[in-house]
Amino acid sequence: MSQSPDFDNWICPLPLRDYPQIVLGHGGGGKLSQDLVEHIVLPAFNNGALASLADGAALNIAGIRLAFSTDSYVVRPLFFPGGSIADLAVNGTVNDLAMLGAQPMFLSVGLIIEEGLPLSILGTVVEQMAAAARIAGVQIVTGDTKVVDKGHGDGLYINTSGIGLIPDGIQIAPQNARPGDSVLVSGMIGDHGMAVMSVREGLEFETLIISDSAPLNGMVAVLLAAVPEIHTLRDPTRGGVASSLNEIARAADVGIELEDNQLPIRPEVAAACELLGLDPLYVANEGKLIAILPAAQAERALESLRHHPLGKDAAIIGQVTAEHPGIVTTKTSIGGRRIVSMQVGEQLPRIC
Amino acid sequence: MSQSPDFDNWICPLPLRDYPQIVLGHGGGGKLSQDLVEHIVLPAFNNGALASLADGAALNIAGIRLAFSTDSYVVRPLFFPGGSIADLAVNGTVNDLAMLGAQPMFLSVGLIIEEGLPLSILGTVVEQMAAAARIAGVQIVTGDTKVVDKGHGDGLYINTSGIGLIPDGIQIAPQNARPGDSVLVSGMIGDHGMAVMSVREGLEFETLIISDSAPLNGMVAVLLAAVPEIHTLRDPTRGGVASSLNEIARAADVGIELEDNQLPIRPEVAAACELLGLDPLYVANEGKLIAILPAAQAERALESLRHHPLGKDAAIIGQVTAEHPGIVTTKTSIGGRRIVSMQVGEQLPRIC
Repeated sequence: MSQSPDFDNWICPLPLRDYPQIVLGHGGGGKLSQDLVEHIVLPAFNNGALASLADGAALNIAGIRLAFSTDSYVVRPLFFPGGSIADLAVNGTVNDLAMLGAQPMFLSVGLIIEEGLPLSILGTVVEQMAAAARIAGVQIVTGDTKVVDKGHGDGLYINTSGIGLIPDGIQIAPQNARPGDSVLVSGMIGDHGMAVMSVREGLEFETLIISDSAPLNGMVAVLLAAVPEIHTLRDPTRGGVASSLNEIARAADVGIELEDNQLPIRPEVAAACELLGLDPLYVANEGKLIAILPAAQAERALESLRHHPLGKDAAIIGQVTAEHPGIVTTKTSIGGRRIVSMQVGEQLPRIC
Repeated sequence: MSQSPDFDNWICPLPLRDYPQIVLGHGGGGKLSQDLVEHIVLPAFNNGALASLADGAALNIAGIRLAFSTDSYVVRPLFFPGGSIADLAVNGTVNDLAMLGAQPMFLSVGLIIEEGLPLSILGTVVEQMAAAARIAGVQIVTGDTKVVDKGHGDGLYINTSGIGLIPDGIQIAPQNARPGDSVLVSGMIGDHGMAVMSVREGLEFETLIISDSAPLNGMVAVLLAAVPEIHTLRDPTRGGVASSLNEIARAADVGIELEDNQLPIRPEVAAACELLGLDPLYVANEGKLIAILPAAQAERALESLRHHPLGKDAAIIGQVTAEHPGIVTTKTSIGGRRIVSMQVGEQLPRIC
């Protein structure tokens, strides 16, 4: 290792948007995040598993197929209507594994604690994590604790990584979406982002909006039992449904066409979004999935989702096309078509 | 999940030292860290793999044995003589897996980046991580990036988690140390901690002290080939050799007796420690291991370590006893015996 790194001569392997420094938008799950990963991280760590840009890596170890995923949680505030950083940290990584079709089994926990955090808050967080792990059916088997100086954190950051077993015959990946496939979402969109937003910066809405944070592995198991030939699964967290679908369209080199009036959205979320000038398609979810599968199986898949408590508002929201590869469009309520581009920077800072 | 957690009524499952809030020492790898883990984390996440308190978890999945480990790196400054946060993040997790006797295979990377970090620094860090992964023979297969507001981080925190394969027949764990075993260390102690200390707070020594950050998996493979019946391996990072041996003595319910004059220490590290009033036994290492194994194999193990470039200064530093279980002692240079207790709080803040 070089002892005095030469920063001045470091050259970005691919041209990046004009930011010499990290901005908040680099963490927003949109185009800036994508740039950061594709232009700086991928060229350095060049390998197939990472390049798939899935929610985790599918690995072959000694003849078995494992899913491996990691996520850091830096949400503010730590507790919000319907959940906490503890729920997100467990469910988020469980869901990333489930989106590879894996059965999540084991989690690691890395706590970065800010000096001065009351022990009662830390105790509550670990107890909530343990409860969330029990509900999701996973074990927290290894961990690490670091403390940083007062003022150099936000109370608590949590990283969880997870391991799951991918059953034989399951081949789920962003690039497997095919023209003719149907696009399903498992329920109301935008709840999590608006729930966090509602308690931040003094914003308050008349109706309480609750985060949808939930483990999706149970629903995925039910869905796969009904329709094993699922092509793609994705949980639309940061950047929302719009950014997830854009990533899939790019990865599979297909177009995706949505129908605005098919999108399940709670009236209170729609109203709050309108008030704040936000598009619910870009608002984060923490307990929803997008499933892409052959159209012939769409009704069967929809039925199996709706039989699960987390999927009762599931809907078919669009289709995959051979036209306009890499582009997502939606038919507006007045019949026109508009392009649903990838979010550029940050819409709702640090909601997961 | 409760929507309004009741912090006032949260009760610590076991009495904790008198700190209602997190202090820096809770992250120091000593007694306070141990209290935090044993009194708050373990009771919540209660399970066998975690309770072993090894550097990682040994798991059985579909008939194979996997090692799984996680670590967060919050070192300041990001670059120091002989290494950087990038080397630590790769080598630290590689070493945690190697200490279970596993062959490290795959790493995840979670970056928590502070707004305002120059992209050139981030680019240098990921390139150094990629280089370290190549040297260690592991692949970085999945990752996550979050950005936190300016002033709420220290430029960059990194979490790495890792998966390795434990070969058949290997049974390495802290609780396997047995009376009569020899205690070996693979080289000079205290280099990493003093290297970081030397560039912090304006301290400068006449001689440059270089971090020992290195991947230990190659040396562990050589050691295991020579002496398969290794009982315990540990890399003495935070809290140093003293804290690692105290953890082993407690886990295995044995005593450990060191010989002060057998401890390999560079003269410049010894001098710097003396200047600052520090005991090198408590200073962190990032490229050394402690091996505990039957005395009859000690010479053979020593020889195999010394044949490896990272182990040329290896030494037998003590023995495991049935007496004073849970206690580590050392014979001083004037012939007396003193107790080497666990570090209480933080000796060198945030050196890994």
